[in-house]
Amino acid sequence: MGSSILHVHSSQHTYPIIIEPGCRKRTFAFIDQYITRKPTKYLIITDDNVAPLYLEDVVHSFPSSETVETYVVPSGEQSKSFKQYEETVTAALKYRLDRRSLIIALGGGVVGDLAGFVAASYMRGIPFIQIPTTLLAHDSSVGGKVGINHSLGKNMVGAFHQPSLVLYDPEALLSLPEREWRSGFAEVIKHGFIADKDLLEWLVTHVTSFQEWDMDILSEMLYRSIQVKANIVQEDEKEQGVRAFLNFGHTLGHAIEAEAGYGAITHGEAVAIGIVYALRLSEKCFEVNLQSAPYLEKLKSLGYQLDIPKQLSADGLLERMSVDKKAYNQVIRFVLLKAIGKPVVQGMSGTVLLDELKREVK
Amino acid sequence: MGSSILHVHSSQHTYPIIIEPGCRKRTFAFIDQYITRKPTKYLIITDDNVAPLYLEDVVHSFPSSETVETYVVPSGEQSKSFKQYEETVTAALKYRLDRRSLIIALGGGVVGDLAGFVAASYMRGIPFIQIPTTLLAHDSSVGGKVGINHSLGKNMVGAFHQPSLVLYDPEALLSLPEREWRSGFAEVIKHGFIADKDLLEWLVTHVTSFQEWDMDILSEMLYRSIQVKANIVQEDEKEQGVRAFLNFGHTLGHAIEAEAGYGAITHGEAVAIGIVYALRLSEKCFEVNLQSAPYLEKLKSLGYQLDIPKQLSADGLLERMSVDKKAYNQVIRFVLLKAIGKPVVQGMSGTVLLDELKREVK
Repeated sequence: MGSSILHVHSSQHTYPIIIEPGCRKRTFAFIDQYITRKPTKYLIITDDNVAPLYLEDVVHSFPSSETVETYVVPSGEQSKSFKQYEETVTAALKYRLDRRSLIIALGGGVVGDLAGFVAASYMRGIPFIQIPTTLLAHDSSVGGKVGINHSLGKNMVGAFHQPSLVLYDPEALLSLPEREWRSGFAEVIKHGFIADKDLLEWLVTHVTSFQEWDMDILSEMLYRSIQVKANIVQEDEKEQGVRAFLNFGHTLGHAIEAEAGYGAITHGEAVAIGIVYALRLSEKCFEVNLQSAPYLEKLKSLGYQLDIPKQLSADGLLERMSVDKKAYNQVIRFVLLKAIGKPVVQGMSGTVLLDELKREVK
Repeated sequence: MGSSILHVHSSQHTYPIIIEPGCRKRTFAFIDQYITRKPTKYLIITDDNVAPLYLEDVVHSFPSSETVETYVVPSGEQSKSFKQYEETVTAALKYRLDRRSLIIALGGGVVGDLAGFVAASYMRGIPFIQIPTTLLAHDSSVGGKVGINHSLGKNMVGAFHQPSLVLYDPEALLSLPEREWRSGFAEVIKHGFIADKDLLEWLVTHVTSFQEWDMDILSEMLYRSIQVKANIVQEDEKEQGVRAFLNFGHTLGHAIEAEAGYGAITHGEAVAIGIVYALRLSEKCFEVNLQSAPYLEKLKSLGYQLDIPKQLSADGLLERMSVDKKAYNQVIRFVLLKAIGKPVVQGMSGTVLLDELKREVK
């Protein structure tokens, strides 16, 4: 099975994304090859789900001459808290990380976001690398968005801090439960909708189940999806323009996650519902037929529930959407599609959004 | 009395520093003139010392059509805590600041550092301006270093986030207690030592007391001292090189502050002691005579205590210095002078530092 590599250009530096089965076991070799300034020591931050599975593989890739510390946080969205952030900084200080030390985020999006924000802010910023172990993290590990949650909103505190290297080992995904696949696959579908109709068609043909994967198909899917993300973030690192397109499906998605209580519904499950909502708004707004039925059928066949959960209220969701980071001057900014692959950002009034929500929930 | 202006170039943008008596009362006019993208709303963050003195002046500068919120934190170093950071973010969310809102830091270094770090991380970064009200803040308000403290070290968490404007009103300094003048003046002296011998001479002649100030002398001192700082930070925004020179006197200074307990001794009082220590190390290390006696005499005549407080221990101070942000690979990096205006960064062994400390404390 092959190895593929993508390079992402950022204002801070250019960094490689390696997609290669088994690469977690050669972590040190990749660091040695790609990171120019040799780190003084390493802190691997991971969670208690991932630690028993892959932590040893990563640690054992280092020669005994290197100082490698580890810090394990509880798995789950609740670790993206101010409290866990402070505790992780405390660990970094106790291990005496200095400005030339390297943080290694080994895990899914939560670990990457938390460890990345610690790296972004520790001594005003030290380097870090990402070793994603979920499908969802193929998205979050690229582009440098890091941060933590606040009870009033997801990712409300954070930074743009680019990793120095992303090591993606598709083998690590094989241990994922089905729900985690669904959480990540929504972002793959999203990348298709906003930038690559061929990817959508390819997914319909090649992805038939989350239970069995051909390693080449999986690697190709990761490569194609990451390529969409990488192209966008390197064009617009700090979300002044096109990067906002990545928010397709996320304005309502984030609101659903927050309103249901973080963790009750996965990010991707919420985003899938948000995508359907955004598609419907797009068709209404631009009077087009996006012919998205085959893609939505694929989502359903993969076990997605595409309706807004009945226990949520339309007013509550609208309120959540109005504190979205992309909102300003009280106008909610929605990513809509004029066609598949042709996204636009559209200011939407609360009334229109509410009407559309009320077709589904009270 | 005149107005002077300096422009600082950063990778993010160029920002003006206005030094003008009374300018706090024209805050909105300056924002309107210098900030290109009109903010959606304003959050003034200040402390309970400054609020009764100047908050109204700033608020009243805004027309009633603008939304101006205020948030007052307790004065003192203890507000640079994780807890106060989280509470300030909560306030920003409750006031519904969006990515185009402007944070105004009205106060000394604590307010600037805290408010600046909130601005740096809120929704991954929103603009902020500084309105310094202390002499010490003439230093901290320029250059974009923002952050909070950890019990294991000062400013251990933070960011480089450049202000969009610095409004310096020398009138606001006239209410400062003598101890605050001493805290800030140490940075002025430091700027002379590392970059501008003429400034040192000028200070010896023109600054005779902290109790009475000629507004022109005060404005000129601010201008000259800020100019040194601005030149350095625009050459090296992220402390990869020459910016480290600004740390002259600070390695021991920070250690003294932390070891004595934050707030027990002011930043500048500690830095003054650190400067004397660094001068002595410099003379020893480079076998030079820096002829700094007249400047140290000036410091003494202005009420500085230049010995290391007897209750502190040499080992404790050394331990603190070894977690300094500029340390790496266990080597403590000290800024020394080969001559006045000729700083260098020198790796120092613990033994040499300890010997020198033990001339003063156990």
